Amino acid sequence: MDRYLITGFSGFVSRHFLEYLEILQSPVSILGIDIFTPDFGSDGMNYVQVDFQKMDLLDREGIEKIISQFQPNYILHLASYSSVAFSWENPVKSFQNNTNIFLNVLEAVHSVNPAIRILSVGSSEEYGALAGGNAIFREEDALHPVSPYAVARVSQEMLSKVYAKGYGLDIVMTRSFNHIGPGQKEIFVISSFAKRLVEMKKRGDSSPKLMTGDISLIRDFVDVRDVVRAYDGLLKKGRKGEIYNVCGGVGHPLRELVQQMASILDMEVLTEVDERLIRPNDNKVIIGSNEKIKRDIGWTPEIPLRRSLEDVINFWNRQ
Amino acid sequence: MDRYLITGFSGFVSRHFLEYLEILQSPVSILGIDIFTPDFGSDGMNYVQVDFQKMDLLDREGIEKIISQFQPNYILHLASYSSVAFSWENPVKSFQNNTNIFLNVLEAVHSVNPAIRILSVGSSEEYGALAGGNAIFREEDALHPVSPYAVARVSQEMLSKVYAKGYGLDIVMTRSFNHIGPGQKEIFVISSFAKRLVEMKKRGDSSPKLMTGDISLIRDFVDVRDVVRAYDGLLKKGRKGEIYNVCGGVGHPLRELVQQMASILDMEVLTEVDERLIRPNDNKVIIGSNEKIKRDIGWTPEIPLRRSLEDVINFWNRQ
Repeated sequence: MDRYLITGFSGFVSRHFLEYLEILQSPVSILGIDIFTPDFGSDGMNYVQVDFQKMDLLDREGIEKIISQFQPNYILHLASYSSVAFSWENPVKSFQNNTNIFLNVLEAVHSVNPAIRILSVGSSEEYGALAGGNAIFREEDALHPVSPYAVARVSQEMLSKVYAKGYGLDIVMTRSFNHIGPGQKEIFVISSFAKRLVEMKKRGDSSPKLMTGDISLIRDFVDVRDVVRAYDGLLKKGRKGEIYNVCGGVGHPLRELVQQMASILDMEVLTEVDERLIRPNDNKVIIGSNEKIKRDIGWTPEIPLRRSLEDVINFWNRQ
Repeated sequence: MDRYLITGFSGFVSRHFLEYLEILQSPVSILGIDIFTPDFGSDGMNYVQVDFQKMDLLDREGIEKIISQFQPNYILHLASYSSVAFSWENPVKSFQNNTNIFLNVLEAVHSVNPAIRILSVGSSEEYGALAGGNAIFREEDALHPVSPYAVARVSQEMLSKVYAKGYGLDIVMTRSFNHIGPGQKEIFVISSFAKRLVEMKKRGDSSPKLMTGDISLIRDFVDVRDVVRAYDGLLKKGRKGEIYNVCGGVGHPLRELVQQMASILDMEVLTEVDERLIRPNDNKVIIGSNEKIKRDIGWTPEIPLRRSLEDVINFWNRQ
């Protein structure tokens, strides 16, 4: 029976990951760890058995003890303070809770059992400033991180490579692009837009107006349910020491997503930029190529953007 | 009067930096900070006035207070746990005492006075694994760090760029190659070899044998007295946001330096490899180009290797 240790367990990605494993209908044992207690478990699931332990990955000895006791064959490392905006406000915390926590995980695996396969989840933000034109980021491209968060993620990835090469640790890495899907926290842009649109719709505002940051930004969205399928595939079939984009392969301006959501809600909405929401030095365009992950593990995104947006709106409608 | 804040003050680089400033014969005020108390000061100097304050750069508020009180126009950031070997043994500490301390300095400067010019000292180890052949590293080359220390240094540099671009901080960066010169701690390879050769010579060993790590490694050595002249030049004339190699531009196998030192001491020495001194995944060749620093600030190394080695040997002879 496969044993997964999942860090950053209380987030929406691991919730969807459990649902994906349940669909696979093969018994698995999960140990989730997080500083926050999750509001979900494996109730009603037949194949997935979940335990949860509250802990801070900055506690190096704690993580080592957990790995030693649970003896996972897979570690899905989701833990991250993954907000760019937060990293500008709290760069030190952002760094500690991305890079330093991951280094603790690596050290613990190195000392307990170097054969454990680790999926180190990274971010499309690592690519950073685009040299010019309409390039699509490939895994071999140079990285030009432009925020403290992005630097922390690049550092995490470089550490993965160092431990894979220097100690033979069995690590696969991702650069995961913008997630979309039901259950995402509203600190993330699409979830935040969806929630506010749903509220305006329910209130019946006569001339609804959405305050936004820079919605000319172009991002590559991938549904969280496609993401978790990619993660399990990479844990099982990804090539050791390799980096994989997890992305849709198509770019959409944020403005377009706002308009699609308005259309789903059958409303017309105006947008206005709040200067306070503009971040220093933001990347204009982030689009990825998913050729490599297609080629190596046969993964391809399956959920169309429209369906993702509908599900996000339905999620907020139910709240 | 120029005011320099020097971090990592108790090391041999800042001692030589003070001596260089004294030669310039222009009054300067220095505040040195370090976790270790230096065994030198400005006694006997006419132009350089030194204060020292013991502190840990992991103390974010402490560093902010010091910058706020001292109001430097220059920060020379020398603080680093700069041993590759140490970083394999203590990766977490290495990371904290390279990257995290520097992030605290950046945050403090950002909040106190973004106009302070910072010299962020980095390392040739950042270049890492050479793709092939006898390449000479240039500043624009891709980085492939292969040790936790190297990753920490790349992270420091990426953070410098992010703060320079995102907040307009006035940062110049170096990638400094292997230092050589009198007063260097014996945890560094040449200093260690020199000390042991001097000891063998003094004891009059009949068939002296030096235990070494991999002495086929090729490194680019630059005398610390040339280094400090480069650092002052970069603080005063380096281009904002730019990275500069500080190096000799020539590679020497460590074996050659051992033999040169033996010849200076008029002795014959055998070497033997101690496997415990072989580090995982070490870079075979690290040679830099110093074209950029020559072009931008007119710096060029002046002290020949032979003279550096003689001075290192004289240093240990006097101990």
